[in-house]
Amino acid sequence: MIYQFIPQLYYNTIGQHPPIMTIRDGDTVITTTVDARGWDNNGESAATGGNPMTGPFYVEEAMPGDTLAVKFESITPNRDWAWTTNMLAPAVIEPYVAASLPASDIVRWTVDVSQGVAYLKEPSPGLAELKLPLRPFLGCFGVAPSNGQFISTATSGEYGGNMDYKGLVAGTTVYFPVSSKGALFYLGDGHALQGDGEIIGTGLEISMDVRFTVSVQKGKKIGWPRGENDTHWFCIGNARPLDQALQHATTEMYRLLQEDFDLMSSEASLLLGQAVEYEIANMFNPAYSVVCKLPKSVLSQLYREKRVQ
Amino acid sequence: MIYQFIPQLYYNTIGQHPPIMTIRDGDTVITTTVDARGWDNNGESAATGGNPMTGPFYVEEAMPGDTLAVKFESITPNRDWAWTTNMLAPAVIEPYVAASLPASDIVRWTVDVSQGVAYLKEPSPGLAELKLPLRPFLGCFGVAPSNGQFISTATSGEYGGNMDYKGLVAGTTVYFPVSSKGALFYLGDGHALQGDGEIIGTGLEISMDVRFTVSVQKGKKIGWPRGENDTHWFCIGNARPLDQALQHATTEMYRLLQEDFDLMSSEASLLLGQAVEYEIANMFNPAYSVVCKLPKSVLSQLYREKRVQ
Amino acid sequence: MIYQFIPQLYYNTIGQHPPIMTIRDGDTVITTTVDARGWDNNGESAATGGNPMTGPFYVEEAMPGDTLAVKFESITPNRDWAWTTNMLAPAVIEPYVAASLPASDIVRWTVDVSQGVAYLKEPSPGLAELKLPLRPFLGCFGVAPSNGQFISTATSGEYGGNMDYKGLVAGTTVYFPVSSKGALFYLGDGHALQGDGEIIGTGLEISMDVRFTVSVQKGKKIGWPRGENDTHWFCIGNARPLDQALQHATTEMYRLLQEDFDLMSSEASLLLGQAVEYEIANMFNPAYSVVCKLPKSVLSQLYREKRVQ
Amino acid sequence: MIYQFIPQLYYNTIGQHPPIMTIRDGDTVITTTVDARGWDNNGESAATGGNPMTGPFYVEEAMPGDTLAVKFESITPNRDWAWTTNMLAPAVIEPYVAASLPASDIVRWTVDVSQGVAYLKEPSPGLAELKLPLRPFLGCFGVAPSNGQFISTATSGEYGGNMDYKGLVAGTTVYFPVSSKGALFYLGDGHALQGDGEIIGTGLEISMDVRFTVSVQKGKKIGWPRGENDTHWFCIGNARPLDQALQHATTEMYRLLQEDFDLMSSEASLLLGQAVEYEIANMFNPAYSVVCKLPKSVLSQLYREKRVQ
Repeated sequence: MIYQFIPQLYYNTIGQHPPIMTIRDGDTVITTTVDARGWDNNGESAATGGNPMTGPFYVEEAMPGDTLAVKFESITPNRDWAWTTNMLAPAVIEPYVAASLPASDIVRWTVDVSQGVAYLKEPSPGLAELKLPLRPFLGCFGVAPSNGQFISTATSGEYGGNMDYKGLVAGTTVYFPVSSKGALFYLGDGHALQGDGEIIGTGLEISMDVRFTVSVQKGKKIGWPRGENDTHWFCIGNARPLDQALQHATTEMYRLLQEDFDLMSSEASLLLGQAVEYEIANMFNPAYSVVCKLPKSVLSQLYREKRVQ
Repeated sequence: MIYQFIPQLYYNTIGQHPPIMTIRDGDTVITTTVDARGWDNNGESAATGGNPMTGPFYVEEAMPGDTLAVKFESITPNRDWAWTTNMLAPAVIEPYVAASLPASDIVRWTVDVSQGVAYLKEPSPGLAELKLPLRPFLGCFGVAPSNGQFISTATSGEYGGNMDYKGLVAGTTVYFPVSSKGALFYLGDGHALQGDGEIIGTGLEISMDVRFTVSVQKGKKIGWPRGENDTHWFCIGNARPLDQALQHATTEMYRLLQEDFDLMSSEASLLLGQAVEYEIANMFNPAYSVVCKLPKSVLSQLYREKRVQ
Repeated sequence: MIYQFIPQLYYNTIGQHPPIMTIRDGDTVITTTVDARGWDNNGESAATGGNPMTGPFYVEEAMPGDTLAVKFESITPNRDWAWTTNMLAPAVIEPYVAASLPASDIVRWTVDVSQGVAYLKEPSPGLAELKLPLRPFLGCFGVAPSNGQFISTATSGEYGGNMDYKGLVAGTTVYFPVSSKGALFYLGDGHALQGDGEIIGTGLEISMDVRFTVSVQKGKKIGWPRGENDTHWFCIGNARPLDQALQHATTEMYRLLQEDFDLMSSEASLLLGQAVEYEIANMFNPAYSVVCKLPKSVLSQLYREKRVQ
Repeated sequence: MIYQFIPQLYYNTIGQHPPIMTIRDGDTVITTTVDARGWDNNGESAATGGNPMTGPFYVEEAMPGDTLAVKFESITPNRDWAWTTNMLAPAVIEPYVAASLPASDIVRWTVDVSQGVAYLKEPSPGLAELKLPLRPFLGCFGVAPSNGQFISTATSGEYGGNMDYKGLVAGTTVYFPVSSKGALFYLGDGHALQGDGEIIGTGLEISMDVRFTVSVQKGKKIGWPRGENDTHWFCIGNARPLDQALQHATTEMYRLLQEDFDLMSSEASLLLGQAVEYEIANMFNPAYSVVCKLPKSVLSQLYREKRVQ
């Protein structure tokens, strides 16, 4: 089934709120998200700021201990402007330099979806010619966290949340560990593009049209969000500091290699040691996010006989 | 001038040791390095282990406060095998999983320079078909550190050292802040290839033939190693934990944008926020290394009139 | 008023659960808490493990933006045994040593309240003579967090929670920032004694009789838990890593000195620089806790005329 | 033997500099140190700033693998004033607050040794009545580091160095792992008093008269500085971030309990878990310092029969 859903209310926590729609394994949803401050496609305030979420979607088959897969088929800005801050976050700069930075302002960008580019509306001379390619993704999405918690959409954890990973573009499938009946999937916080680390605290914040399809992997137990695109498998760890976020991401990939590719400790270590790639997704939110990746071109070389068992 | 230098002794600290050769701005050196344990191209022990260095090369024009540029023209394995460890470092894994890992062993890889690939000499079944493309670089190189220090080649700092950054392949130019007369350039610790983070504690450790050319930028003052290749400018920060390494790298790039591209704080912030890329070079050594990168395709869009002044 | 409250149900999250009792500024409550696994004074399972909380108590006058003061008049173990784990947490030991530690077991201690000591029930020879003085406190207590969140009692934040600070003994007054109507105060997770850092992951876990009195400071806005005993004022920061927990605690103390003692930046800095004391409360929970303290003997020397204004 | 030594030159690195005096196990030295900027007892510049060291003293019997014990018999300020900075270091404050702090100035304190107190020479009103008790100690001392390194006196490591631990007062014995022939002991950077963490970047910086006695423990191998006073045994870990410094300190104490008190893993863990105390020595230098302590009143309860074996 393909559903169209027009949100009327938005949540600023991810938890066991009453579902706004029930869907089933294999269903597709076409919906919209407002931006991080709650501004919609018309630039009007539709929700309270702080990453208001569309959802939750209750997925009929999903039970605690399962995995929910969400394939993003399209993520498209639905207005022609975005906003960002304009000053580096203190956490990414040496303390004595951070102390010298001016206060941050909000600036506006033109987002030209047909040309696939964004540029500052009123650039200062140094950036007058700057045009950056669009790479739209959602900064915050996930499922209800464990133990009945309701957690602010400012942060993230095993359940997903505000990971702000620029790699989560259309074409990507993301996997979440399910902790509550129906999984309760939320989404929002669209970015038209963003650098690594979200180091000024925002991407190009914008409202989005989104199309996604869910599926449930019964009895498949994972620890942290995993994902897959044409070229890579990846795992996301969310924590502070970066060291710990990286530990979660690497541990999840190590488990993926053991469980899904039947590798021993030494095999997984040798492979990761020489082929792993990392991305720093965000170093701004209460939990930082680090992504541990392996190329499918490498994974495809793993001993087949074992994998088909 | 092009010099050929055959090392006879090697140092395990970087500091103001007596120079083994004096060269000048523009000179090229062809030399060799032994591997991290001191084994040479014949697989014989030529030096005491712990990243023994070829050098130091005294660069005539270099004075404290200058920048030394080193362009690597070639870095080529000069034997047909390399070694690695085979177990993830505890620092990159969740503590309770780290506690369950077996002890690490040394394993050997075949390095086929003509085919440009490496593979395990005696793979267990899971990795029997694995072939990885070579990407040779030097793990440890740099200039004498400040204040007359002599620092172990296990670690790194503003002066370079054991950064283990897989991006430092042939074709790259690296810039170092000069702290002592003659700069005193050292090099060694070749890796035939390596993943991000050096997360098993080694790349494919191997001896190398190296060709490099030095130049001196008089009066150009930088804070941390910078580098340049066909596609990017980058800055390297070395410290623990990852957060601090990233802070140094980002601060150095912020200065580069201000000094070399005349950007204001807000311009540098807007650009970095939406276009920065990070790499985790190593998360194993006493100082971790993080690389902050900007694409030349983006930098080339910066307002020209300012830059040519 | 003095109320006696016998809990029937316990919560494993801190949030806006329905109050179990409404009290007013100045009221005193006499109640009990079960231990971290939910075992009560009879050693029977009375609640689901993971720091089950007694409460929440709704404090009539408390509104968002106020401060809730809780004075602990007595915290007394109400059974004669406690349990602990018996192995150091990996986070407090060098990684390669952590990897060599045996798995942790649960061991029992005798708690002799009349003698004021605890000792192992079945000690191995090395600890056969060990008797440690009791110092009972509550590991986890606080008020509903901001933004309608419900957060697991495993962790902590601005609202308090699982701070496991051994200094929070009877005689201490703790101050919390109120985020929801009625504050909603919870308490539990008694420890008969504990070392700094809770570095084996438990104190002497035990059920307690507790007596406390609440008061509301209308319009007094604080950022993190503060506290006071006969000798010190202190502030608690909860975060990972230790560096960040310490930053929160120090910042809160810096604000306390500015707001409650009228000090300028330089005065607060000079005082803290030469008189501050830190305690590491826990380095085990998802958020670590660091305590920033100043002796009342020093604070009493601050310029009086300013303070009485 | 008791030697008097009047320093003529000072070093700003700790390493294998030529000894200024040879002494033997059991010998006592009476000497002086200049302050962190090189100012002596007359307030005159006697050395280049950055913790200039008196020494090195060559201890005849000390060989790599031994332990050098240094008992401080007296540490006494030898002038009547000290200096400090006056602003919190950015590392100890939340980043957005740190960015709002004014720049730091140098201020002078009167040091009255006969009364045992210090107070600001020109206090602003808020601190007009402040008098703090003296507690003189040396901020930086240690032995030549391993592998022939020469390391700046700004930082610290296994060999000691700039630990700035306020507990290292007269009456304390400190133990260092010896890495080079003669150990090569250095000392300097006196503080008349200091708070935990050295959080404004200085203690009360002052020149000192020092009397110490050395002894050599042949074949006793330790990993990090250890110490002992009337009430405690302690171990010091030096690293960034705090988490890692604490790991080194705890690991060294764990080894001390195993080696010197014959405890098993579980016994050492149980003891540390319920009796450990931590101090944050410095959170300012390139390496932070954390101290792991155990009371002698607890250690004296350990099973004797095992200990006397």
